[in-house]
Amino acid sequence: MVNYTSFFSRVAENLQGSAIRKMGVMALRDPDLISFAPGYPDPMTFAWDDFRAISADLLTSQDATTLQYGPTRGFPHLIDAIVQMVAARGIKTNGDEVMVTTGSQQGLDLLGRILIDPGDVVLVELPAYTGAIAAFRNAGAALVGVRQEEDGIDLDDLDAIVQRERLAGRRVKFLYVVPNFQNPTGLLIAQAKRRRLLEWAGQRNVLIVEDDPYGSLYFEDSATAADTRPIKAEDSEGRVIYLSSFSKTLAPGFRVAWVIGGAPLIAKLDVTKQTQDLFTGALDQRIVFEAWKRGVLDRQVPKLRAHYQEKRDVMERALKAGLGDLISWPEPRGGFFLWVSLPRHLSADELLPRAIEHKVIYVAGSAFFVDGTGRNLMRLSFSLPPVPRIEEGIRRLTQLVKEELSQRPEPVGI
Amino acid sequence: MVNYTSFFSRVAENLQGSAIRKMGVMALRDPDLISFAPGYPDPMTFAWDDFRAISADLLTSQDATTLQYGPTRGFPHLIDAIVQMVAARGIKTNGDEVMVTTGSQQGLDLLGRILIDPGDVVLVELPAYTGAIAAFRNAGAALVGVRQEEDGIDLDDLDAIVQRERLAGRRVKFLYVVPNFQNPTGLLIAQAKRRRLLEWAGQRNVLIVEDDPYGSLYFEDSATAADTRPIKAEDSEGRVIYLSSFSKTLAPGFRVAWVIGGAPLIAKLDVTKQTQDLFTGALDQRIVFEAWKRGVLDRQVPKLRAHYQEKRDVMERALKAGLGDLISWPEPRGGFFLWVSLPRHLSADELLPRAIEHKVIYVAGSAFFVDGTGRNLMRLSFSLPPVPRIEEGIRRLTQLVKEELSQRPEPVGI
Repeated sequence: MVNYTSFFSRVAENLQGSAIRKMGVMALRDPDLISFAPGYPDPMTFAWDDFRAISADLLTSQDATTLQYGPTRGFPHLIDAIVQMVAARGIKTNGDEVMVTTGSQQGLDLLGRILIDPGDVVLVELPAYTGAIAAFRNAGAALVGVRQEEDGIDLDDLDAIVQRERLAGRRVKFLYVVPNFQNPTGLLIAQAKRRRLLEWAGQRNVLIVEDDPYGSLYFEDSATAADTRPIKAEDSEGRVIYLSSFSKTLAPGFRVAWVIGGAPLIAKLDVTKQTQDLFTGALDQRIVFEAWKRGVLDRQVPKLRAHYQEKRDVMERALKAGLGDLISWPEPRGGFFLWVSLPRHLSADELLPRAIEHKVIYVAGSAFFVDGTGRNLMRLSFSLPPVPRIEEGIRRLTQLVKEELSQRPEPVGI
Repeated sequence: MVNYTSFFSRVAENLQGSAIRKMGVMALRDPDLISFAPGYPDPMTFAWDDFRAISADLLTSQDATTLQYGPTRGFPHLIDAIVQMVAARGIKTNGDEVMVTTGSQQGLDLLGRILIDPGDVVLVELPAYTGAIAAFRNAGAALVGVRQEEDGIDLDDLDAIVQRERLAGRRVKFLYVVPNFQNPTGLLIAQAKRRRLLEWAGQRNVLIVEDDPYGSLYFEDSATAADTRPIKAEDSEGRVIYLSSFSKTLAPGFRVAWVIGGAPLIAKLDVTKQTQDLFTGALDQRIVFEAWKRGVLDRQVPKLRAHYQEKRDVMERALKAGLGDLISWPEPRGGFFLWVSLPRHLSADELLPRAIEHKVIYVAGSAFFVDGTGRNLMRLSFSLPPVPRIEEGIRRLTQLVKEELSQRPEPVGI
């Protein structure tokens, strides 16, 4: 066999995969395993009948563009729809500032390629979404973590870090944030803090990459649309690059998402996407557009809010009943995730093999920290499993943690 | 507005777009324009009814995986199907050596990222597919062109170049070839030459990237399946990385293609794809798989051979009638392209603005040459326009070339 090693690029040698993807594969292989690992939407909620009717109509009409090569920037009617959709979130934009991407992951990857030279600093929250971490790291970024508080990113820490990095001679390109129901913490950046953050970015001349897959999935018992108003809504100078997606509201299998930024930046993304996949799936874009046009999306979203709120309730109740005095988490006001702190001396990484024996899995928190911390944290997704599986999974987790604590009681006085 | 210039990476500063994509956009804007520019398949040939039936079945069955996140490597049944499909082309492989990509363009881009460090030499034919040129250049490759003969790449030139580049201290990573009905020339590498090429690659320790989108679309009046047997079919050591696609045989709108290579190389591609788009569209992969399973693909391909052969005939007849004594081309034995040599003193680039005035476009040949040559060449795609539009377009082109020659007669004695 050819020895490929001498052919691989430095990028290939240092590639970082996704911890979450690995967990996803594991869950597929063993149907008895209850997985709180991947942040998958619940397929029971998908608008199957609408998608079937839409596909039938599209394929009956035989409009060539439904299956033909299409423009890199995206299906023009979908771009117009996105402009209208984000207007409802407070974002004023136009078609020159929008590009459709093959999932938001592609948006992150493309941004990495056009913004990051090896060694450039990218700021991420502690913790941050692993898919973004991996994309930026594979582009050569030096990732620097910024502390989070209950109401979102710590602005003092952020400013101190930027000053320090610049003094050390490094270029700080952008801050990556997920202000709405962050993956993995579920936290929301407070509106006042968003405004201060944008002001700060202007003063320090740092770009903000705002990733917003979960914004519309707030829980009506504890949040409103106003709480989720994007940072981008206040941006008048192209400072914020905004990403969002149909993966959580319609279905991830379509791979349709979008990015909004200043026109010169979108033009660069366009040329980069040309060499990356030419364009995003044509039928997928058409189905998504029709789902918007026919009101499917507008009917879905309120249902999803209620659906995931109920699942959060089920998971929280089960956790409180089983482990309420041993663990803690910030109550999610939207999104898919519950971010659990174990007793400090436990390690979610070390616990994972035993969790698998107990037929339950999660993502160990350390995967989300670029500074090597987060050992006693775990991300539990309540979005995918049916209610009885959530309850059974938390029972298994409870048993596991209790067993572990009985064998490894908390050290005293440390 | 933010001045993005200080934020862009070196990759972004030096990005190269696709000449073909620009032409495609132009054609969309003016319906009177007859475009021989983009190599689009003919949507009249798409199996619309089969796709409608398949989509309906898939969306009725509500199998979650149809619309859910899926494995980066691809839908497992589709991978098995690809293994069987390529066996018919003489390629022995297994699922560990196959990855589904979001179009072959993604395969090229991913290969660029895992194989090319800035300055590494990548060998391409003179001329070569622009999408590959752009992907490898954006990865930092130093592209070096190798001459072609009527029966394919010039092995003497190839060997001389590799020796020269290595003497100059550069690393030669791979040779990129399209052996079947090359884009843009339509040429076929002779079978004997393919075997010599593979042998040479082993001796010189160079990888071969074999891109084969058109292999099954040979024209039965002048070629057989045996003529299109891939280089990969003789490869027992993972020397050849083979790409192919459903874009030309089913439809490009699905964005489903594949790459085959040694398992360690596919593993690297997998991790790179994770950060690039997570996975290829789930519904698209399912539709393609069903189209294969239900025999749609096998029914389509012979029809396509006849369909495109007829269109080639129409274009050739029209060109012979109008410009037969002034231009020449190698007769295409398959694929989508006719590669025209104008009289030497004409420039296809300079002619293009006047061609647009005449409401006909093509891709100027220079876009396909990494050495700055090819000024008097043009690529005409006969695949997309209906027969009367081919005839009318060639009439316009004939008029244009004759006008040009009357104003710029061939210089004597140069």
